[in-house]
Order: sequence, then structure tokens, then C-alpha cells
Amino acid sequence: MADLVQLVEDFLAGGKRIRPTLTFLGWRAAGGEGDETAVLRVAASLEMFHSFALIHDDIMDDSDTRRGRPTIHRILAGRSPGERAEKFGIGAAVLLGDLVFTWSDQLLHTASLTRAQTEAVLPLVTEMRTEVMLGQYLDLRATGELTDDVEATLTVNRYKTAKYTVERPLHVGAALAGAGPDVLAACTAYALPLGEAFQLRDDLLGVYGDVRDTGKSRLDDLRSGKNTTLVALALRAGTPAQTARLRALLGDPALDEDGAEEVRAILAATGARDTIEHMIGDRRRQALRALDGAPFTPAAATALEHLAATATRRTS
Amino acid sequence: MADLVQLVEDFLAGGKRIRPTLTFLGWRAAGGEGDETAVLRVAASLEMFHSFALIHDDIMDDSDTRRGRPTIHRILAGRSPGERAEKFGIGAAVLLGDLVFTWSDQLLHTASLTRAQTEAVLPLVTEMRTEVMLGQYLDLRATGELTDDVEATLTVNRYKTAKYTVERPLHVGAALAGAGPDVLAACTAYALPLGEAFQLRDDLLGVYGDVRDTGKSRLDDLRSGKNTTLVALALRAGTPAQTARLRALLGDPALDEDGAEEVRAILAATGARDTIEHMIGDRRRQALRALDGAPFTPAAATALEHLAATATRRTS
Repeated sequence: MADLVQLVEDFLAGGKRIRPTLTFLGWRAAGGEGDETAVLRVAASLEMFHSFALIHDDIMDDSDTRRGRPTIHRILAGRSPGERAEKFGIGAAVLLGDLVFTWSDQLLHTASLTRAQTEAVLPLVTEMRTEVMLGQYLDLRATGELTDDVEATLTVNRYKTAKYTVERPLHVGAALAGAGPDVLAACTAYALPLGEAFQLRDDLLGVYGDVRDTGKSRLDDLRSGKNTTLVALALRAGTPAQTARLRALLGDPALDEDGAEEVRAILAATGARDTIEHMIGDRRRQALRALDGAPFTPAAATALEHLAATATRRTS
Repeated sequence: MADLVQLVEDFLAGGKRIRPTLTFLGWRAAGGEGDETAVLRVAASLEMFHSFALIHDDIMDDSDTRRGRPTIHRILAGRSPGERAEKFGIGAAVLLGDLVFTWSDQLLHTASLTRAQTEAVLPLVTEMRTEVMLGQYLDLRATGELTDDVEATLTVNRYKTAKYTVERPLHVGAALAGAGPDVLAACTAYALPLGEAFQLRDDLLGVYGDVRDTGKSRLDDLRSGKNTTLVALALRAGTPAQTARLRALLGDPALDEDGAEEVRAILAATGARDTIEHMIGDRRRQALRALDGAPFTPAAATALEHLAATATRRTS
């Protein structure tokens, strides 16, 4: 038991805290002030939920590394000697994720919310959870089945990242401060383009990033054949020879660094890499425009402006 | 999406409903009456949570059948043609379980509880979830590592079944009716021996039951090397030849019906099977004694008395 808690503590220490930051900024943007206890507890609950989601995602994606360390199911597999090691690792990681989900709920239940806060926040939390799980399901179904359907990849992004990572945390924070429909709509107008840009940056980092910065292997996405927007664009724009090579290389669990280098070169040569950079820029500007005239407190609007830049230009 | 909902509906249709029944009886026992909407919604939430737990347990235990049908991860694997089928089945079942957990929480959040009910019930629900997950973790660690430590198996039973299946549902129902410490303590005195008896019956059915009644293969527990109290007793009481055979046969993923028949014969020959029957009888009587003088409403006490008989004498 103590070893499981330690594992979760170590895992939580490595996060970027983007969701709790947005929860707090949503609260501030909607005029929240004074006692911060409840908003911090709800924000912590969202970060805890995210840890649960990552632990389970890494099982589904068969990932080796996360936050610069082996993934939880790999660590747990290493603690069970013998032939059952892999199965034990997966089973114990499923269970540890479930426990972390429970703890995230416990943080939420013990945030001492008012009746009005509870009624505003809990439906948003349920929406957020459902959206990310269905987004992950779409992602899982698409993995290993490469298509050039760029729109389909953007739909997955919208549910799995834009709403989950940016919109819902802002909404939850704003709702804690008693936000009305106008403030929630302004959150959405900022959040969706920014969230999509965030995911597109993530897709690029998954292929071109430096593992010392990202903490994730840049072979995982390629080996699992993840059908990112980047890949879909290349399949749409590439020559028959290029797309044939991509289809041969992507999803090969034994793909090595030479093969990955060839994928990177093809993704660049088709123009897909540049297109993604343009898409990120467009969406960042759209998010910034949404801040103009948004009914947010000025200090929060400034913080959200900075966040739009760092979240889309990051290297980790 | 619709296919996932259908899968959960079919799964839910097959349950024995013991936890929601106990939630309702706990409410009645503590004097609950009148509008049943809230207690039924909370009871449904517990049944939904149990579906989540079973979907994930079946992944961890690598089970083939549940409630007379293939397990969820096997069904989902069958929907993904090709070499990734098994991985897809596990990943999608992890995710579907997560979604069912979310729905169980949603049922709880939308039960329109009073502030007092919320404050009494949510900590119990958190306890229940944590207990069953830690019980499952202990179970997972013990699987495949056979010991004659009868006490250790009873500890797992206590957390994984007695508290989770009987005590906490009764507590949750009683708390909804505003039960005080004396009523909760009386629930515990009845629930723990009954819950242990329930699990001991389950262990027997897992080995000697008829799949047409139980809906579970009676090879799963043996093939996974589940370290039940039944097995621990046989390892403690058996001759060196008997225990050597048990250790050779249990946990063999290729165990066939002949091998299983040999295990059944050894478990009976060591006296373990009879001892379990005696333990079930002792615990049933202990549970019934606890009802004498319990501060329960008479109709609920009578229902709990019947339940003690059916839960420990059942064939499914």
C-alpha cells in the first residue's frame, strides 16, 4: 500500500499542472477572489484525475516512458518477477489508476463547496470525464488504422484535448466563481482553438521532440501507429511512394531510430510538418482574439494571454 | 458509442443485484420510508460501480466468461480483427470500465440528496471504493503465489467481499435514512460474517459450481491460481503428495477438465471442502445472531434473515 502511494506521489511530481492552472485562472477570470481553499482543492482533483487518465492511457497505448520515467505498468511489471510480470503490471496499473480516480473524486467531495457550487461544478466534471473517455475510445479505435481523414483526427483532438485540457478546467474554475453563460461562452471561444493548438504541438513533439525535454520516447507514437493530424496530413499530401513507406513504417512495434528518421523526413517533405506549424499559429491567434473583449478580469486575461503563447510554443 | 452503451446494458441485465438490495434494506432497517427516489438512485449507483469493478477484475484475472457470456474484454477483442485484437480488447475494456465508473458517480451526484445525506453517504462511498480496490490489489498480488496462509486469504475476503458486498451497501442505505452509530454497528455485526460466508460460497462455486447456474467458467479460478481460502486450507491440511499435485496443477493456464477434476478430488480429500462448508455455516449463524436485538425495523430484519440463507446456500 505505502509503495503504491509513493508511486503516485512520484508520478504527480512530474506534471506540467496545466489543468489546475486553468481551473484557478477560470476562477480568477470570472471574478473569484478571497478564500482559495475550495478552488485549489477542485484544481488538485482535476490534476489527480489527469494522473488516472495517463496511467490508463499508457496501458492502452502500450507506452514505455512518461515524464522521463518508465510508465506505471512497466514499473509494476518490474516488481513481479517471473512470467506473469507483464500481466501483473497491467492489472496492477489498471487498479492503481482506479484508486487515483477514487482519490480525485474524494478531493472533489471534500472541497467544502456550497450547494450552488456543487450544482454548477459536478455536471461539468461529469461532462469532462465522459468527453475525455470517449475521445480516448475514438483514438484507440483509430490507432493502427491509418487514414488521411484529417477532420476525424481533429474531432478526436477536440474531445480528447481541447475540451478536456483547456475548456473544461476553465469552466470548472469559472463555475466555482458563479460564472454566467457569457463568461462560460468566452472561456470556450478561447479554449477550443488553444486546446487544438496544444494537441497539434504535442503531436509534433511526439515525433520531433527531445526526450530530455518531453520525458516521452519519440518512438512510442510512431510504433503504435497513432493516427495524428500530422500523419493524416502527410497521407493526404504525400506521393504514392511516400504514403506507402509511411504505411510500412508506422505501427511497426520494432521500428528503430533509422526508421523513425525516415518517417520524420517524409512528414517534413510532404509539407505536413509545416502545415501543422501554420495550424498552430492560426489557432493561437484565434485564441488571443477571443480574449479581446472577453468579460474576464484584466489580470486573468493577461495570464491567459501568456499561457496561449507558452502552451503552443513549448518544447516539453 | 451506442454499441458501448448496449454492451453495458446487456452486462447490467445479468447481475444478482445483491448490493442495491442491501442498500435498500439498510435504508428500511434504519427506518427509511416514504419517497424512495434517492435511495433507489444511490442503490443503482452501487450496482453500476460493481459493473465497473467486474469489468476491470475480469481483465486482471484474465477471465473468459462472466454472467454466462464472454467477458467484456473478450467481446471487444472480437470486434477488432487482426493481430491487435487482444490489446484492443483490453484497452477498450479498461476504458469502458472507466466510463461505467463515471456513470456510477453521475447517478450518485444526481440523486438529489439533502446536505445531511450527502455528508453521511459520500465518505462511506469513498471508503467502499478504496477498500475493494485495495482488496483486489492484495488478491492480484497473491494470485499465482500459492500459500497455506488461511488468515491472509480471509483478510482479502474481508476487504474485497465482506465489507464491499454487504457492510458498505447496508451502511450507505442506513446513512441515507439518518442512521446513528448503533444502527451502523449492528449492520457491521451482521454484514461481516455474512459477507465472508458469501465469498467462501463463491470460492466453492468457482471450483464445484455448475456453469449453467453461475455463468462463470469453473476453470478460470484454477487456471489463474487464485489463492482462495479453500486452496489455502488444502495446502495446510494436505499430505506432501497432495500439496505437490495442487501446486503443479493450480495456475496452469492450460489446465483441462481432467486436471480440474483431480484438483476437486484433492480439495475434497484434504477435508478443505468440508471445512469451508462448516465455516459458511458458522458465519451464517453468527450473522443471524447479530440480527437478534439489532435496532432494525422488524420487516427489514426479516428480509435480512432470508437474505442470509439465500446468499450462503445459493448455487449461482
